[in-house]
Amino acid sequence: MTSRFFLENSQEFLSGNKISKKNNPDVFHHLKDVLRVKDKDLVELVAGQSAYLVRVNEISAMEVFFNRLDKLSKDPEIPVKTTIVVPLLKSDHLDWLIQKATELGVFKIILTNFSYSVVKDIKIEKKLQRYEKIVKGAAEQSHRLLVPEIIYEKKFIEQAGLSDHQIGIVAWEESAKAGEKSNLFKMIRLAKLDSKFNEIVAVFGPEGGISKKEIKKLESSGFITAGLGPRILRAETAPLYLLSSVSLLIELS
Amino acid sequence: MTSRFFLENSQEFLSGNKISKKNNPDVFHHLKDVLRVKDKDLVELVAGQSAYLVRVNEISAMEVFFNRLDKLSKDPEIPVKTTIVVPLLKSDHLDWLIQKATELGVFKIILTNFSYSVVKDIKIEKKLQRYEKIVKGAAEQSHRLLVPEIIYEKKFIEQAGLSDHQIGIVAWEESAKAGEKSNLFKMIRLAKLDSKFNEIVAVFGPEGGISKKEIKKLESSGFITAGLGPRILRAETAPLYLLSSVSLLIELS
Repeated sequence: MTSRFFLENSQEFLSGNKISKKNNPDVFHHLKDVLRVKDKDLVELVAGQSAYLVRVNEISAMEVFFNRLDKLSKDPEIPVKTTIVVPLLKSDHLDWLIQKATELGVFKIILTNFSYSVVKDIKIEKKLQRYEKIVKGAAEQSHRLLVPEIIYEKKFIEQAGLSDHQIGIVAWEESAKAGEKSNLFKMIRLAKLDSKFNEIVAVFGPEGGISKKEIKKLESSGFITAGLGPRILRAETAPLYLLSSVSLLIELS
Repeated sequence: MTSRFFLENSQEFLSGNKISKKNNPDVFHHLKDVLRVKDKDLVELVAGQSAYLVRVNEISAMEVFFNRLDKLSKDPEIPVKTTIVVPLLKSDHLDWLIQKATELGVFKIILTNFSYSVVKDIKIEKKLQRYEKIVKGAAEQSHRLLVPEIIYEKKFIEQAGLSDHQIGIVAWEESAKAGEKSNLFKMIRLAKLDSKFNEIVAVFGPEGGISKKEIKKLESSGFITAGLGPRILRAETAPLYLLSSVSLLIELS
C-alpha cells in the first residue's frame, strides 16, 4: 500500500514538485528517516485539495524531488459532512475514538462538556495537540483527502444551533429504551435525498447520559433525538455506529 | 443504570431466587465486594435465556437472596446472528475489537490465520481466557442477553463452508478500490427479507490484506466479496462498520 502524506506547505510541491525540510519538516522526516525512500519509490501526497501519486526522483540533504504520475480522482470523503460532538473521555478512550472516527470519515470533532461528564477540561490545549496528531495520522492511514478538524467548545449545548443546511441528531439512550427506531434512518436519508441538507451534526453524551435539560435545549435548537439500537453503546462506540450508518446509506447503494 | 450480570449457574436462581458463593463465585464477588449491594438494591441477572430485574432481599456470608420483580422482555440481540472472522492482531487492538464488537451485537468471534497475518498464535489458549473475560464484561455492560462465543480456528479459510441459512461476506479492499458499492447492502437486505437466511458470516483480513488464493477459496465456498466504502479501514475497525450496518438495516427501520 502506497503511503499517503498531507503536506503542511502545498505550494512548493504544486509549483516545484518538491518538498523541503524547511517547509514540510514532518513529511520530510517521514520520507527520509522513517520510510527511507529511495529513487523510484511511490508515495501519495495531498496538496491543496487533491491527492497525487508521485515517484521519488531525487533526494538531497534538504529536499526531496518527485515526478508527478497521477492526480488521484477517487473521492474518499463522505458527501455529507458529519460532525460529532462528544464528551471528554477517560484516558485512551478518546484517543481511540478520534482515530476510528477519522477512519470512518468524520468531518469535524467537537469536544465539549455535559452535566454528567466525569472528565474535566484540564490541560485541554496540550491534549488537543496530541489529538491533532492522532487525527492526522489516521487521515493519512485511511487515505483521506482532508484532515478532520478537532476543537474544544466549552459550552456547545448552551450555544447550540443549526444552520439551514444542517441536520442535528442527538443519540439518546432514553429514546432507544422507549422504542424509538426510525429517526436515525430517516435523518440520514433526508441528508441523502434533500439537497438542501449537506451536513449532519450528531451529539453523543457521556457514560452518565445526557440530562433532560440538555435534551430540551438541543431539541429546541432543532436536534432530533434518535435511538441507536437496543444495546447500550459506550460513549466511544456510539459515534462509530453513526458514522458507519451515514457511510452505508450515503456511499454504498 | 442497573448493572447486569450473567450467571454461571442459573439453576439456583431459577429455582431458589438466590446466588451462592459456591455456584456463582464471580457474580457473588461482584455483588458483595465490588458493588457492595445492600438490601433493596436493584440488579439485572441473566439466567437461562432470560434477563430478570431483581431486588436484593438478604445478604449472608455465602449467599445473596432476591425478590424477582420482572422478567425483561426487551430483546437486545440482532435477529440475524452475525459472526465475524478476524486475524490475530497486535497488542490491544484485538482487545478493543472484541469489546466493541460485543457492544455492537456480534454473535460469535472466530480468530484465525491469514497468509499475510503478522501475529502468530503463540499462547492462544491463555489469550482466549482473557478474551472471554473481555467479551463477558462487554456483554454485561451493553446489557445483552447472551455472551458471544470467541474461538480460535487455525485453518478457517481452508475449511470454510456455509450452511443453507448462512450468508457469507468477505470484506475486501480490492473490491472497494474497483468501485464495488452494493454487495454489503444487498447481502444484509437478503438476510433481512429472506427468512431462509438467519446468519451472516463475515471475514476480515489482516493489515497486509487477503491473498488472491484466499479470496478464491472463500468465493468458491459461497462468500461474496464486498467493499466497505472508499476509505481504508484498519483490521479492527472494519468489523465494527459491518456490525453497525447489520444493526441499522435490520433493527432500525
